Amino acid sequence: MTRAGRSQEEIRQRNLGALLRHVHLAGAVSRSELADRMGLNRSTILALTAELTSAGLVREELPRDTGRAGRPSLVVRPEPGRFHVLAFDVRVDRLVAARVGLGGVVLDRREAVRQRAGADLEDVVGVLAGFGHDLLRRTRPGSLCVGVGAAYCGMIRPADGTVRYGPNMGWVDQAFGTELGRRLGLGLPVPVGNEAHLGALAEHQRGVGIGVQNLVYLHGDVGVGGGIIVGGKLLDGDGGYGCELGHMMVNPYDGRPCECGSRGCLEAEVGERALIDAAGRSGDLSGREGVRAVVEAAERGDPAAREALHRIGDWLGIGVANLINLFNPGMVVFGGMLREVYPGSAAQVLSRVEANVLVASRERVRLRVSALGDDVTLAGAAELGFAKLLADPLDVLAETRARAGTRRRRTLTPTTS
Amino acid sequence: MTRAGRSQEEIRQRNLGALLRHVHLAGAVSRSELADRMGLNRSTILALTAELTSAGLVREELPRDTGRAGRPSLVVRPEPGRFHVLAFDVRVDRLVAARVGLGGVVLDRREAVRQRAGADLEDVVGVLAGFGHDLLRRTRPGSLCVGVGAAYCGMIRPADGTVRYGPNMGWVDQAFGTELGRRLGLGLPVPVGNEAHLGALAEHQRGVGIGVQNLVYLHGDVGVGGGIIVGGKLLDGDGGYGCELGHMMVNPYDGRPCECGSRGCLEAEVGERALIDAAGRSGDLSGREGVRAVVEAAERGDPAAREALHRIGDWLGIGVANLINLFNPGMVVFGGMLREVYPGSAAQVLSRVEANVLVASRERVRLRVSALGDDVTLAGAAELGFAKLLADPLDVLAETRARAGTRRRRTLTPTTS
Repeated sequence: MTRAGRSQEEIRQRNLGALLRHVHLAGAVSRSELADRMGLNRSTILALTAELTSAGLVREELPRDTGRAGRPSLVVRPEPGRFHVLAFDVRVDRLVAARVGLGGVVLDRREAVRQRAGADLEDVVGVLAGFGHDLLRRTRPGSLCVGVGAAYCGMIRPADGTVRYGPNMGWVDQAFGTELGRRLGLGLPVPVGNEAHLGALAEHQRGVGIGVQNLVYLHGDVGVGGGIIVGGKLLDGDGGYGCELGHMMVNPYDGRPCECGSRGCLEAEVGERALIDAAGRSGDLSGREGVRAVVEAAERGDPAAREALHRIGDWLGIGVANLINLFNPGMVVFGGMLREVYPGSAAQVLSRVEANVLVASRERVRLRVSALGDDVTLAGAAELGFAKLLADPLDVLAETRARAGTRRRRTLTPTTS
Repeated sequence: MTRAGRSQEEIRQRNLGALLRHVHLAGAVSRSELADRMGLNRSTILALTAELTSAGLVREELPRDTGRAGRPSLVVRPEPGRFHVLAFDVRVDRLVAARVGLGGVVLDRREAVRQRAGADLEDVVGVLAGFGHDLLRRTRPGSLCVGVGAAYCGMIRPADGTVRYGPNMGWVDQAFGTELGRRLGLGLPVPVGNEAHLGALAEHQRGVGIGVQNLVYLHGDVGVGGGIIVGGKLLDGDGGYGCELGHMMVNPYDGRPCECGSRGCLEAEVGERALIDAAGRSGDLSGREGVRAVVEAAERGDPAAREALHRIGDWLGIGVANLINLFNPGMVVFGGMLREVYPGSAAQVLSRVEANVLVASRERVRLRVSALGDDVTLAGAAELGFAKLLADPLDVLAETRARAGTRRRRTLTPTTS
């Protein structure tokens, strides 16, 4: 009768996806917990679990250790080995590819250190596609690739994975997602996301921000990117280009020049180069290694290094205070190189937050470092790859098997030409 | 079977609310347009319209002028006279109350200029409740009050309408919504919203931002408040205190002192006092009238006034650029006193946006002044009052009639004591 009225089939499809998502994100969930979380009765959970089990997506087993007496309830786990995605991650300093199993387990990975200078689209895609093919060749027979996802350190048009602006490689309007899809030749689309957007989603789904509905994630490397979760969803804006917190101007007077052409942007004041310059080490240090050297020097008590972290913390604090005033988040998460920088600059950040944020907006906020480490963006890319499967598990499996069958037949059938 | 599966009754209730909302916001909609917008077939629309008509909520009539030949299709209109809400608006400089009919028509209003100095909760609530009772006394018989809503120029706890922080009145943790409800004595809750939040919703629903899913609204008076629509919804954050864009620090060096205790906040650099000071008129001008005088002087070519608007525009531009980088909005709307200030400072704002915002984030954004004028916050308060009716029209009417009947019987029955 109405758009609002959903067919039983749609409801079943959606429930299968929701159950698989719970299991995929939590690793192991008991049936009764699934019933609670999904608001469904136990017999429905039983039926849904049976369908996913017979499709080979999950299995039921005894929990490892309940710590309670009595007969333990079975838990539902993902089958990591049988279904995987390919996840790609174009970082400022390296190219990473991984085969990631259902449940988010990295089954295999490859990486190559990247020159900081510009790199052609073709070179980057060539390296990544090579990694992808190699990862798939080493997959055990019968294991199926159900999706692909990629993270990129720049602004991405979500519709087609075009890199609108990739300052570290000098890319403008490069068809990255399309080209990577073509070179992989798997017949699968390659959704691409901005690395900080994906990092935010990963921390929200699997990291320090589980259950936090309003979360601000700052991802530092050469620049500072952002991913902001508003009401449980990534803030993407009109074109998918939201969350560019690195270009928030914090220093309008004597700001440092920024890659974007402006001055005094947050990323210009707190990025890698700002820290290394502030420590007076621009002659001998650079990049992520340089950041680590400054942080370690500060930990050893080096005054210049400590002072540099305090200076960075003051600018970072202005930015964080602005973000808390705007978003009233439950949590602010520092990722990328900011994960290493934050502990030594936390006092300055907190002092700015206290001075510049209204009490009601900050009374419940927690400031934390990323739990997922350097692979936070890779984890987000994997989730992009799993998105279709989690929306409609059985249809995606059927499509995947049909595609795999076609490819196998193509390989086996002798050509007649 | 499942939470996702909705009963026919829930679907009908939701569809009645959705249809009434379309009519309430658009003023007059043809049945075919309703069918398109709601994704329902014409016979369902016919049945829903008949129910709402017999409840007295809408009526069908010929459109005023179709401009087309042939038999015109009937349009569905709200019945503004029979059902209304009370809307209250506590502004920096005045207290406003209005009876607002379905469709958003202001049927009657009262207002009192407020002294800028602090005012007791009891005084403010007393004036507003007095206005409310007077407005209801002058209502024609049979007309029903279906809800109440209030806007307040401060930070509001949504759960109970407590003013957490009202800088203009010096309020901290004042039970405004609860007290106003008690003094009105209508047996209706009084939801309260921050004025800029409600202004943003009003511009999004009825003003210049109709159809814009990502919108940043800046509301200027003594300070600068904000309301930000993300994906069609108000950004409220963890406690409802989001969007405090007025306390974004834009001037960390020689910033003007801000009411919040910090310095260099956007509102300190672009609020009423900043403009009047910049124009060198702090000796003879103040408040909204003072802003108007400066703007008029600038329009007449007065160099100091023009220069003051340019200076404000430069700081406003930094704030707006930061917001566009963060939200990638389709539109930025200037309301309150910024509606008057913006035209004379637009060149500086646009110049900052061009210099400081990444191309992809700004390529489609439009900058506009509020379409709803000074009553934008009152309009938002009225929508708060209508929210329950639009969620479940027939139940709310039944409750309202029961409550009205009880009150009438109480009045008519002679007391036996």
